[in-house]
Amino acid sequence: MTAQPLRVGIAGLGTVGAAVVRLLRDRAGLLAARAGRPIVPVAVSARDRTRERGCDLSGLRWHDDPVALAEDPEVDIVVELIGGAEGPARTLVERALAKGRPVVTANKALLAMHVGTLVPLAERMAATLGFEAAVAGGIPAIKGVREGLAANDIDAVFGILNGTCNYILSEMRETGRDFAAVLAEAQRLGYAEVDPSFDIDGVDTAHKLAVLASLAFNTPVDFAALHVEGIRRISADDIAYAEELGYRIKLLGIARRVGDGLSLRVHPCMIERASPIASVEGVFNAVVASGDSVGQVMMTGRGAGGGPTASAVVADIIDIARGQRVAPLGAPLAALRAVPAVPMEHRVGAYYLRLMVVDRPGVIADIAAAMRDEAISVESLIQRGRSQHEAVPVVITTHDTEEAAMCRALARIGTLHTVLEPPHLIRIESL
Amino acid sequence: MTAQPLRVGIAGLGTVGAAVVRLLRDRAGLLAARAGRPIVPVAVSARDRTRERGCDLSGLRWHDDPVALAEDPEVDIVVELIGGAEGPARTLVERALAKGRPVVTANKALLAMHVGTLVPLAERMAATLGFEAAVAGGIPAIKGVREGLAANDIDAVFGILNGTCNYILSEMRETGRDFAAVLAEAQRLGYAEVDPSFDIDGVDTAHKLAVLASLAFNTPVDFAALHVEGIRRISADDIAYAEELGYRIKLLGIARRVGDGLSLRVHPCMIERASPIASVEGVFNAVVASGDSVGQVMMTGRGAGGGPTASAVVADIIDIARGQRVAPLGAPLAALRAVPAVPMEHRVGAYYLRLMVVDRPGVIADIAAAMRDEAISVESLIQRGRSQHEAVPVVITTHDTEEAAMCRALARIGTLHTVLEPPHLIRIESL
Repeated sequence: MTAQPLRVGIAGLGTVGAAVVRLLRDRAGLLAARAGRPIVPVAVSARDRTRERGCDLSGLRWHDDPVALAEDPEVDIVVELIGGAEGPARTLVERALAKGRPVVTANKALLAMHVGTLVPLAERMAATLGFEAAVAGGIPAIKGVREGLAANDIDAVFGILNGTCNYILSEMRETGRDFAAVLAEAQRLGYAEVDPSFDIDGVDTAHKLAVLASLAFNTPVDFAALHVEGIRRISADDIAYAEELGYRIKLLGIARRVGDGLSLRVHPCMIERASPIASVEGVFNAVVASGDSVGQVMMTGRGAGGGPTASAVVADIIDIARGQRVAPLGAPLAALRAVPAVPMEHRVGAYYLRLMVVDRPGVIADIAAAMRDEAISVESLIQRGRSQHEAVPVVITTHDTEEAAMCRALARIGTLHTVLEPPHLIRIESL
Repeated sequence: MTAQPLRVGIAGLGTVGAAVVRLLRDRAGLLAARAGRPIVPVAVSARDRTRERGCDLSGLRWHDDPVALAEDPEVDIVVELIGGAEGPARTLVERALAKGRPVVTANKALLAMHVGTLVPLAERMAATLGFEAAVAGGIPAIKGVREGLAANDIDAVFGILNGTCNYILSEMRETGRDFAAVLAEAQRLGYAEVDPSFDIDGVDTAHKLAVLASLAFNTPVDFAALHVEGIRRISADDIAYAEELGYRIKLLGIARRVGDGLSLRVHPCMIERASPIASVEGVFNAVVASGDSVGQVMMTGRGAGGGPTASAVVADIIDIARGQRVAPLGAPLAALRAVPAVPMEHRVGAYYLRLMVVDRPGVIADIAAAMRDEAISVESLIQRGRSQHEAVPVVITTHDTEEAAMCRALARIGTLHTVLEPPHLIRIESL
């Protein structure tokens, strides 16, 4: 056990960066005991030197240029908390790895877009690349899957990976309010960004899923192969029908082995209310991995925020201080083989369909014919509330069918002049 | 990365041992890719050479004496799956560690009773001691707490650590049947042992809690300091009242920092139905750790059985093959300090109390007086069902009070001639 301190450089001093500096300084004794050596912040980089950040920056070298921090000869490990798939974050990480320096990052966008170049670079330079903080905040999901379940052939990994979406869906269910109202409130409370599209359109979930799937299946996932839908179209009606049918609606990221391929998708799901992941509410995240020996393991906790994310960043730093070395994707790339993505059209499962229709004889017959012609078997149909002048909802759930058939039926249903809005489809998942 | 195979010796070929042999043989390619080198079973030890175990033992050296396996010069790592706190399991583990050999064990009894000698021995000999499988089966709880949450000062760790008890309590709730009937059924189904006392009296949970707490608080826990109660006295009435009051009854192991001490206890708890751990049902286990940075993290999955336990054993083997070295308790003993146990009498919290009383005027007044004299504040009182000739239940819940006061009040209530059975107390926990 060496007593040589590990010198840490931190690029990016937002909420997470400041929390990392605080944690390293306030808990120095505990962390040194666990790591077997002192862990000492020595340098930082951020744009504004004057901003009050709620952490003690005294004695730390300041780099205006984050790339200079990556090359600071007195830094042993580079922590990237700038964010973004391109720009300084990318350059910084590439430069540090190219110098053979260990890097710890919370940047899921960067990893999702560049896993195919960053991992080979890290491997070639024998540099550790830690990214526990990139997925599900403080939950040790990366370590749990990569090391804890290393004995398993994993056939699926899925989860609630975005706290903003889960908060909105939980609030909609609890209050009965519609999406727009709950989103506006979430923005007021600071749970959603001013421009919320990154979260609510599923992009953030997709980034995290790409990282998680790369690990679980030991293969760099091509981000472009992911099917991504968000939660904008979920209505208060959908939430109410889901309750009536015994389901909860969650935005899930799902990666599942299907034959020799990999199905990778982010979309709202109806899942049985009794399913363990259905009870994960509010800003909490959950990651479920399903392995051939272990069965399903679920990990839940806070997926965002300074404290939880700093917890994950510093766990990676401690691993590096301890001299732990695990290949970023759990196995060296040479041992890996690419797994082809299964197109979304091949998904087989049940569906929930909400249509807004004119209340007139023959409407259901037209819809039913469109389903029948695609050999889609209806499981239940709810039509209630009668109105001669307004659109009324018709809700249909199906037995297992292929997405391609469902899409063809929907296209035909969408052309019916008695169907007043684009049909809204939510996939029913048995997990 | 060395290509030197890691030679594994396995002592004990019960369900778990056989599953480990199968896993190492059937998944050799995958495991070698992840570990960076082949992992090869070379020797085994068990009592009966002729028994059919459902795994291929061809080519493996057989040791009749497990201690000889520990000393086999062609074994690099010793896996102990014999069980028991003393006897061959203990001798085997001590001998292997004394030779500086890495040991992986699923033996919670051994660890709980001898953590104070085994850990120093492992440390002195620089031998790795892996015990992921000793707590919560396939759930990577040890790794999750020791490494995943290494950046946290942990103030509590608790969980559902025994699947047999959780199955019995879940079944009692779902079917309304009484303890004895459900236990008998669990025995028929193989979920409970012929002699079930080890599980249902809380001993198994206590062993696991001692191990988990030793890690979480980086201190070898003195097993004798644990307060241990089982589930034998939980009645169908208690389950029904719990539902009525909005609680679920779970057997929990709880380790919590209280001031400068550590409260360590295993007993049935009433927990709010909406609490995440309340929805962990049947044979599933759950481990919750609460850290100052991360908040609460919960991990759930299968806590027993060949596959899940083998998954954890082999994860430890892969860590060792990769050259990972973490101090068994998360920090070297020299850096640790003993934390004194807080006596059970100091527990402060709410209580549920069920009394079987004679239905006669003045009974409630006597009970209430006993509580008042101990300054115990009653939160609710349920008395219903009237019968002149039979005992009727009176159920009381209290506001927070100290256990010592509660015990004194109970002692006095127990002496009332109108109270027909020993009072039954269940602690209400806010988690």
